Amino acid sequence: MTTVGILGGGQLARMLALAGAPLGLRLLVMDTVADACAGQCAPLLVGDYRDEAALAEFASRVDVATFDFENVPAESAEWLAQRIPVFPSPRALAVAQDRLAEKTLFRELGIPVPEFVDVPTRAALEAAVAQLGTPCILKTRRLGYDGKGQFRIRSAADVGAAWDALGGQVANVGLILEGFVAFDRELSVIGVRGRDGEFRSWPLTENWHVDGVLSASLAPVACTPALAEQAYAHARALAERLEYTGVFALELFCRDGLLLANELAPRVHNSGHWTIEGAETSQFENHMRAVLGLPLGDTGMLGHACMLNWIGAMPDAAPVLQASGGHWHDYGKSPRAGRKVGHATLRAGGPVELARMLHDVGSALGRVEQVAPVIGSLRSRG
Amino acid sequence: MTTVGILGGGQLARMLALAGAPLGLRLLVMDTVADACAGQCAPLLVGDYRDEAALAEFASRVDVATFDFENVPAESAEWLAQRIPVFPSPRALAVAQDRLAEKTLFRELGIPVPEFVDVPTRAALEAAVAQLGTPCILKTRRLGYDGKGQFRIRSAADVGAAWDALGGQVANVGLILEGFVAFDRELSVIGVRGRDGEFRSWPLTENWHVDGVLSASLAPVACTPALAEQAYAHARALAERLEYTGVFALELFCRDGLLLANELAPRVHNSGHWTIEGAETSQFENHMRAVLGLPLGDTGMLGHACMLNWIGAMPDAAPVLQASGGHWHDYGKSPRAGRKVGHATLRAGGPVELARMLHDVGSALGRVEQVAPVIGSLRSRG
Repeated sequence: MTTVGILGGGQLARMLALAGAPLGLRLLVMDTVADACAGQCAPLLVGDYRDEAALAEFASRVDVATFDFENVPAESAEWLAQRIPVFPSPRALAVAQDRLAEKTLFRELGIPVPEFVDVPTRAALEAAVAQLGTPCILKTRRLGYDGKGQFRIRSAADVGAAWDALGGQVANVGLILEGFVAFDRELSVIGVRGRDGEFRSWPLTENWHVDGVLSASLAPVACTPALAEQAYAHARALAERLEYTGVFALELFCRDGLLLANELAPRVHNSGHWTIEGAETSQFENHMRAVLGLPLGDTGMLGHACMLNWIGAMPDAAPVLQASGGHWHDYGKSPRAGRKVGHATLRAGGPVELARMLHDVGSALGRVEQVAPVIGSLRSRG
Repeated sequence: MTTVGILGGGQLARMLALAGAPLGLRLLVMDTVADACAGQCAPLLVGDYRDEAALAEFASRVDVATFDFENVPAESAEWLAQRIPVFPSPRALAVAQDRLAEKTLFRELGIPVPEFVDVPTRAALEAAVAQLGTPCILKTRRLGYDGKGQFRIRSAADVGAAWDALGGQVANVGLILEGFVAFDRELSVIGVRGRDGEFRSWPLTENWHVDGVLSASLAPVACTPALAEQAYAHARALAERLEYTGVFALELFCRDGLLLANELAPRVHNSGHWTIEGAETSQFENHMRAVLGLPLGDTGMLGHACMLNWIGAMPDAAPVLQASGGHWHDYGKSPRAGRKVGHATLRAGGPVELARMLHDVGSALGRVEQVAPVIGSLRSRG
C-alpha cells in the first residue's frame, strides 16, 4: 500500500484525498495549522515546512510526496526530493514560483507572452514603464496569488505609488513589470503528464475573476478547434520541457483570437474543479494517478459544466442540491472574508440547459452578477 | 457544522464518508477494530457496539447517527435513539433484521413473496417441508448475509442434515423455511426516503451472485415500464410503512415477468455501488442528504453502468484504469478469502459499448466468467 504525502492541507489537498482514496492509496497531509480542512478527510501532520524535524517525520511516513500549493519553500522541496520521490519536481516548482523564470521559459518555447521586464530598482521601474508604456502592472516575482502582490500603473504618474506599495519587497521576492493585456477572455488549460511522459489535457476552460479571485469557470469553451489545439500544444510543450509529473494549469489571455500565456500553476487548479462531475476523470484523480505512476484516465467531458466559487461564506445549499445536475462542495472551513470556502458545479447536457440552470440558481441565491457573464457566454453560442 | 456518526466502519462507511465530505459534514465512524477501512477516510472510534460507555462517547460526539450494516444490536440502536436522532429508525432496522417480520410485512403490503413458514422446532421443519414441498431453503431468521446461514433442502431426506446444520441456532436467531423460487433474474431497487417523506429510487438493477455473494450488477435493466413501476411501488410502499429515512435496497426475484420480494437491506447496498459514477447522485450522497434532512438529489442515470465486485484480493488495476469509463474502487483492506475488497464500475453511453468494455476488461483480467452473464444480458437487448 503506497502512502502519498501532501504538503499543504487546504481544499486542494482535501479533494486530492477524496479522489485518491478509491485508488487504494494511503495519505498523510502536512500543514502548519491543526484545523487544516484536509485533516477532516485524511491523517494530518502539523508542522512548519521549514522545520527539518517535521519534514523528516513526514518523509519517513510517506512513499511519495506532492503539494497542494505552489509556494512551498524551494529548500523544503529540495530536501524532500533528496529522500523520496517528489512530484512535480522541485525544478518545475522553482520555475512556476518565479514570474520572471516562468515568462522567460514561455518565450523560449515560442509561447506568446505579454511584454515583461525585470525590475530590480526604482530606476529600473521608471525605465520599464517608459519601455512598455501604460497601462502596465507591477507584480512581485514570487509569492503572489489571487491578485495579491500586484499594482496597476495607469500612467507614469503612478510609478511612485507603485514603488511605495511593492518596492519594499524587491529584495525578498523580486519585482516584474508586465504589459497590460486588454484581453477578450481568460482561458485555462488543465493538463496532466504521467511519470511515463504520457500527456493529456481537459477541454479548454473559460474563467471569470472578481477582484483578482476566480469567480466562475465554464467548459467546454466556444472557440475554433485551432485555438484549442494551440492551447493544448503550449501546455504540452511546457510539461515536456519541465519533465513535469502531475496536474498543472496554464492560464491564458485570449485577444482577437490569439493566445498569450499568463501563468503556470504547478498543481491542481481552481479552474479545474468542474472536472469532478464534468469529466470522465477529475483533475484530482489524475494527479494522484500520475504521482503513483498509474495509467492516466480519460479527460473527456460529460456534457457542459460551470463551476461557481463561494468566497467568504457558504450560501444556502438548497437551490444547488435541488437542481438536477447541481453538485455541492463545502470545504469544511470557517467563514472569513476573501477565503475560498467552497464551490458548486452545475452540469447539463447542453449550453441552453446550463444557462437555464445558472439563471435559476443565480436568482435563488441572489447571485445574479456572478452567473451573468457565464450565461452571456453560453447564450452567445446561438 | 453537523457531525454524522456511522456505526460500522467497512467499505459502506468509507464510501459514505467520501460522499458526505463535500456536503460539509463532519464524521465519526465507530467500529470494533482499529484497522476498519473507513478509518482511513474519517475519524474512527474503536469500541464494542454493546459497550454502553463506548456508545455514550459516540453519542456525545455526533449530532445524528446511521449504520453501515444491518445487524447492529437492536438494543444498541434503541439506546442511541433515546439520545440522538438515528436513521433509519430502530423499528425499521428490527423489521429488516428478521426474515419472518420482513416477509410478513411484504405480505401485509400486498407485495408478492415466496412462501415461508416459521420453524421453531424440528417437528415444525418436517411439517413445513411437507407443506411447501421441495426444493426449499432453511434460513436463519436473523444475522444471515451473503448466503451465510442457509441450507438448501432438495428432498424430504435432507431435513435431518438441514436441522443438524442450523437447528442449533433456533434459540438465538430463529429459523424460517422459504419456498424455492426458480427465478429468471435477480433484481434490486435502491430507494431513498428523506426526513420530509420525499421518496426517490434509482433505475432498477440486475444482479448476479456467485456462491451467494454479489458478483456483478447492471443498470438500467431491460424490462417493461410496468415491471419497473411495480418494483418502485413496492419499494415506496415499504419505505412509507416503515417511515424510513435514508437509502435501502429491496431485492427481488423476477419469474415469468412477475416480481417476488426477497429481502430488504436497510442501508446503502452493494448492488447500488454503480450509482457513484452511473447516476447523477450516488446512493452514498443521497443517504447522507436524507440523514441530514437536505433535499434529495437526482437519481437519474448517466448512460449504462456495470459494477464488478472484487472478492478476496484486488485484481490488476491497469485494464480498468486504462478503459475510458472505467472506475476503480479499492477499499484499502488486506486480502482475505471471501472478503469484499473492492469493485470497479464500467460506464458507457449504450449497451453495445458497455458489452465491448466488459469483454475487454474481462479478458484482460482473466475474468471472462464474471462478465459473461452481464454481456449476455446486454446482447440479448438486440
